Order: sequence, then structure tokens, then C-alpha cells
Amino acid sequence: MTPETVKSLIKDVKDFPQEGIVFKDITPILENPVAYRSVMNFFINCLEGLKVTHIVAIESRGFILGASLAVLKELPLTLVRKPGKLPRKTISYSYDLEYGSDTLEIHSDALTSEDRVVIIDDVLATGGTAHATEELCRKAGAQVEKLLFLIELNELKGASKLQAPYNSFIQF
Amino acid sequence: MTPETVKSLIKDVKDFPQEGIVFKDITPILENPVAYRSVMNFFINCLEGLKVTHIVAIESRGFILGASLAVLKELPLTLVRKPGKLPRKTISYSYDLEYGSDTLEIHSDALTSEDRVVIIDDVLATGGTAHATEELCRKAGAQVEKLLFLIELNELKGASKLQAPYNSFIQF
Repeated sequence: MTPETVKSLIKDVKDFPQEGIVFKDITPILENPVAYRSVMNFFINCLEGLKVTHIVAIESRGFILGASLAVLKELPLTLVRKPGKLPRKTISYSYDLEYGSDTLEIHSDALTSEDRVVIIDDVLATGGTAHATEELCRKAGAQVEKLLFLIELNELKGASKLQAPYNSFIQF
Repeated sequence: MTPETVKSLIKDVKDFPQEGIVFKDITPILENPVAYRSVMNFFINCLEGLKVTHIVAIESRGFILGASLAVLKELPLTLVRKPGKLPRKTISYSYDLEYGSDTLEIHSDALTSEDRVVIIDDVLATGGTAHATEELCRKAGAQVEKLLFLIELNELKGASKLQAPYNSFIQF
């Protein structure tokens, strides 16, 4: 299935999660195995030639894409979560939002300086979350080889915040 | 890898998320592709002979297991989430906890009366969440064929709350 066909499955939801925002609902892609496999094939192609040791998935829709990719590629899956969700000692990274701030965490022992990771999430929007995850991986000692996204929202210019190369399957 | 070997990877974390609770940390299983594949092979065997149309995954560690199983079995993945997370019209189900209550939601159009689903989550504890998800699937019109869990905490007797058959890979 082409990216355009997969894109046509996405449902726009107005005023979610708050007024003025048009949310891109990807659940129809998850519910369509042929579309979903096309996304996975794209991600697998993006990893060609890279020596990747871990898939790092961002809570919580990133868990879905990351868990599928990790099992297909037989790679370890490492979780990046919101504060207080990971049970053992963590490294954390806080970053500014338009209003307020947010924090992400990774287990302190999840990665080493030998590791070369690929970060995965559903959407690249402002890039704040993705950038924070890059910083977390580096604080944990690992090298970020690439970032992968199902959707990129071009006008929010999140790509400008990323340090490692990235790929997105669908652009809006 | 045998269930006993996979079980030995799980880390007990005392007093998480609150005092007196010993949390079973499954992240070492996610980080070990051979162990993780053993879990998946078990789940795949559990589905043999069943006519399953959807994998229904419970937020958020259930998303991980469900997304891996769905991509391996080429089945649609349907999400059950906490309130306010699913963007379109939902069916919700509330259930009592020891203190207070909790609610889960599924998209109203996610399932039909033709559908036969398998519910998946990381832990079967008191069974409240799993039972609520069974009810949600039925409210959405679908038949629950089976429930799958990575871990079952026997002393909490969650199995007594389930209506459909279930399998757990590891028991404590």
C-alpha cells in the first residue's frame, strides 16, 4: 500500500484534545493489517545499512509502532515514559512546552555506550518530545542512529529540532 | 526459551507504585529479543484453532504485546484506553477499584457483531481491567474468544472475574 493510500485512512478529528487542534487519528491504520505492514516495511527499509542495537519507543502510541518493529527486526525494545511510570532508577529530561513543561524518563541501565538506537514515535509535531528522547538516549550513553515517525506535520517544523537523521512515512 | 527462564528475567521492585506493593518489572523481557519471541510464540500457539478477527490491547503495556502479536498474526489492532485518550466517539465502562473507580474506553466503531476478539495485557492481577475490557468488547457487539497475559498473579484470583477462556505465560 502506498503512503498516499495509508494517509487516506487517517481521520481528522477537530478540536481534539483541545479547541483549535485538528488531531490526526491513526487508529484506522492500526486496524488495517495491510496498511500497517506497509508502514513497517517502510521502517525496515529505513534501517537498512544501519547497525542498530535497540528500538527506543516513546509512550504511548510509540510503544505500538516500536513493539511491532522490534519483534519484526528481533531487536530489544526500550521504553521512554512519562514520569513515575518506569519502576527502577531512571534518567530524566525536562523540556519546555508552549505552556509549562514536560518530562520523559528512561531506565538508567537501559542503554550503554556500545548502543546505537533508533527512536520511534507516531507523530513528529513540534519535535519537543523527539528531541527530549534524543537527549535521554545520549545521557544514557548511546548513539542515536535515526528517528522514525509515522506522520510528520510539516508546518510545525519539528525536524529542525532533531540532531540525528530521521524518516517519516506520511507528511501533512 | 522456557517460561521459567523468561520468568527469571523479571525484576521485583519493592514499594512501587506505592508502599507495600512488589512490582513485577517486565522491561527486561522487552529488552531480550529471544525471551520476547518466546512470549509471542506462546501467544501464537494459544490462538491456534480460533477464528480471531482483532487483537484488543489494553493501555499501555498491553499496547506493546498487542502490537507485536498483531503484526506477527497480520490482524487488526484495536486500542482500549483511559478516558479522554481516544479522539472519536467511544463506548466506556467504569469499574470499582479498592479505593475509587476507573474507566476504560473503546472507539464506538472499532468492533462489530461479526468480530471475535482476543484481549491482551501484560498482567492479570485482580482482573478488574481485564473484566472491564471484556464488557467493553461485548458492548461494542463483539465476541471475546480469549484473553492473553504475560504474567498472572495467582493470589489475586483475577481469573475468577473473567468470562472467556484465558492463558498466561508466567505465573507468580
